[in-house]
Amino acid sequence: MLEEKKKRLTPVSELGEFGLIKHLTEKFELKNISSRLGIGDDAAVIDPNNKKIVVSTDVLAEGVHFNLGYVPLKHLGYKAVVVNLSDIAAMNAVPTQILVSIAASNRFPVEAFEEIYQGVSLACRHYNVDLIGGDTTSSNSGLVLSITAIGLGEETEIIKRDGVKPNDLLVVTGDLGGAYMGLQILEREHTVFLANPNMQPEMEGYDYILERQLKPEARTDIKKILEELKVKPTAMIDISDGLASETLHLSDQSKVGFRLYEEKIPLDTLTITTAGEFNLNPSTAALNGGEDYELLFTIGPEDYDKIKNHPDFTVIGHAVEQEQGNHLVLRGSGQLVPLTAQGWDAFLKK
Amino acid sequence: MLEEKKKRLTPVSELGEFGLIKHLTEKFELKNISSRLGIGDDAAVIDPNNKKIVVSTDVLAEGVHFNLGYVPLKHLGYKAVVVNLSDIAAMNAVPTQILVSIAASNRFPVEAFEEIYQGVSLACRHYNVDLIGGDTTSSNSGLVLSITAIGLGEETEIIKRDGVKPNDLLVVTGDLGGAYMGLQILEREHTVFLANPNMQPEMEGYDYILERQLKPEARTDIKKILEELKVKPTAMIDISDGLASETLHLSDQSKVGFRLYEEKIPLDTLTITTAGEFNLNPSTAALNGGEDYELLFTIGPEDYDKIKNHPDFTVIGHAVEQEQGNHLVLRGSGQLVPLTAQGWDAFLKK
Repeated sequence: MLEEKKKRLTPVSELGEFGLIKHLTEKFELKNISSRLGIGDDAAVIDPNNKKIVVSTDVLAEGVHFNLGYVPLKHLGYKAVVVNLSDIAAMNAVPTQILVSIAASNRFPVEAFEEIYQGVSLACRHYNVDLIGGDTTSSNSGLVLSITAIGLGEETEIIKRDGVKPNDLLVVTGDLGGAYMGLQILEREHTVFLANPNMQPEMEGYDYILERQLKPEARTDIKKILEELKVKPTAMIDISDGLASETLHLSDQSKVGFRLYEEKIPLDTLTITTAGEFNLNPSTAALNGGEDYELLFTIGPEDYDKIKNHPDFTVIGHAVEQEQGNHLVLRGSGQLVPLTAQGWDAFLKK
Repeated sequence: MLEEKKKRLTPVSELGEFGLIKHLTEKFELKNISSRLGIGDDAAVIDPNNKKIVVSTDVLAEGVHFNLGYVPLKHLGYKAVVVNLSDIAAMNAVPTQILVSIAASNRFPVEAFEEIYQGVSLACRHYNVDLIGGDTTSSNSGLVLSITAIGLGEETEIIKRDGVKPNDLLVVTGDLGGAYMGLQILEREHTVFLANPNMQPEMEGYDYILERQLKPEARTDIKKILEELKVKPTAMIDISDGLASETLHLSDQSKVGFRLYEEKIPLDTLTITTAGEFNLNPSTAALNGGEDYELLFTIGPEDYDKIKNHPDFTVIGHAVEQEQGNHLVLRGSGQLVPLTAQGWDAFLKK
C-alpha cells in the first residue's frame, strides 16, 4: 500500500464514464454459449436454451460489508462475485453470467477500479461465468458494489427453501465459523496497525481462516456431487449470515422445526484454536458468524446412507414438527436451548 | 417536507434488514407467468418459455444522478425503474422483471424506503413488470439505487446497435430536450429556495418538462407500434445521454456516419420557450441534455412510407458511409458541423 501511494494514479475523469467501462471490461470474453450478447449494447442477451433462469442480486457497501483498511480491492472484487454465485448454487443451478455495478467516490482512481475488476475477472474464470453488463458511477462517498448473478437450471433440478418435511436430515457442506474467526484476526491486527503503523501484522499461521474471510468460494461443485450420489435435497440455502439464521429461514419457509446438534457442527482445527485465543466458543462463530458460503440443505432420511461417508457433508440435525420449535442440543449436557439468530451466546460454554 | 419532519420516523434498526425487505416487498405480487419465484429464496426463478432473456443494470447515485433537495423519493423510485425498462425497450424486448437494490445511510428512516418502494410499485404496475429480488443495506453515506431489469424477446425481434447501413433513416420517438429543461427549472427554483426557504417555488406552467425530468416514461409501447406498421428497425438505442451521444454510439457500433438535421429535431413548445428563458438553443437541450428516454432507431429507406405520418416518429437524419463522419446540419444555413457528444454548443445559434 505504501509503495502504491508513490505511483502516479489516474483520476477517473481522465477516461470518462464510457472510457472507464470500456477500459475495465474489454479483456473479458464470453465463454458460455448461453451468453449471446455481452457488454456494449443497451442490454445483454442470454439464450436459456429451454432451461429456467435463476437470478439474484447483492449489494456490498464499504464500512458495512468490508473495511478497505484490511480488505484488498482485488479480494473484494472476487468476494463480491462469489457471494452472488453462492446464491445461485443454493438454488442448485449453474451460474452463467454476472452484471457488476460500482458506485465509488472520486478518491478511487482508475487503478482502484482495475484492482476490483482483476478480482472479478479471476472469479469469472474460476467459476466459468461471463461478465455481461454493469454500470460504473461516481458517488458522494464510499464504495458500493452491486452484483447480479444469473444461472440456468432445469425446472426439476431447482431447489427452494420450502420443501423440508419433519424427519428430514439437516446437512451442511465443508466447515463453519472460519470466515468469522478470520475477520477477528483481521480486525485485531488492523487495530494494532492503527495504533502503531510500524508494527508488522501477525497473520502467520492463520492462512486458512484468513482465506475463508478474504477469498471465500461458492460451493458450485455441490450440484454435481449430489447428482453423482443420486441425492436431491428437499430444501437448500447458502450460509451467508450464520448457521442459526439460515436454519431459521428453512424452518420459517418450510413450516417445520429443527433439532441442531452443537457437537455435530463441522469446525476446522484452526477455527477452534483461534476461537480459544479470543475466549469464544467456536460454535458461536459457526452459528452466528456468517460469511462461510457453505450450503445448508435437507434430505429425506432414506438418503442418509448415500451421503454419510462423503467428506464434503456433515449431518448436523433433523427437522421436527413446527410446533416443536427450533432448538440447539448442547454439547455434553444434551440440554435443549431455543435456537435464535442471535442472543443465545450466553447458553454456550466458553 | 416541513410537515413530514414533525412525524415520528422509524429508524431502520427497528425492523432490521430482513424485516425491512419483508415490510417493503410483501405487497408486491407476481403477475407475469414468466415469474416463477419471487422474493424470499436465495434467488428468483424465471421461465423464459423458449424466448431469449434481455438483461440490463443501472446505478443511480445521490448527488450525481439526483438531488434529494428537489427530487421526491417516490419519483426517484419510479424513475430508477423506468431508466432500466428503457434499456429493455431499446432492445425491442418486453420488460418482465426487476431487481431493486438500495444502499442508504441511516439518515434514511423506514418511511424513506417506503416512499422509494411506492414509486417502484407504481412503475411495476404501470409497466406490468414484477419485482423479483433485491437487497437493502446501510451505507456510509448517501443513497445509491441499483436496478437490474429483465425482459423477454424472440431472437428475431431483438434489435442491437450494430445493424445500421448507409442510407438508413435515423428516427426518434416523441420529443427531446424536455427533461433537460425541466432540470434547469428545478435547479433554478432550488437555488432560490436555498437562498430564502420562505419563497414559494415558481413551477406553474412548466408541468410537461418537469414531468419529463421527474417522472419520465420508457417507450415500451413502441415495440407494438412498429409491429403493427410492419417495420423492423436495423438498430436501436435509448436516449439517456442526449441525442448526439446516442447517435455516435450507433455510428461507432455500426461503422457508419450520420447526417443529423437540426431543424428536424422534435421539440415541444414548452421546451423551446423555456430554453429561451435560459438563453439556450433548445437543440442543445435535445442533443446534449439527455434523460428523455425516447428511442432512437434506424430503418431501411424502403420503410419510410410506413412511418412518415405516424405521430410518434420523426425522421431526423440518415446514415452515410463511415468515412464521411458524423455531422449536424445547422438550421437555416445548412452548414455542416461535426457532431460530438459535447463541446459543439458554440456552433449553435442562441
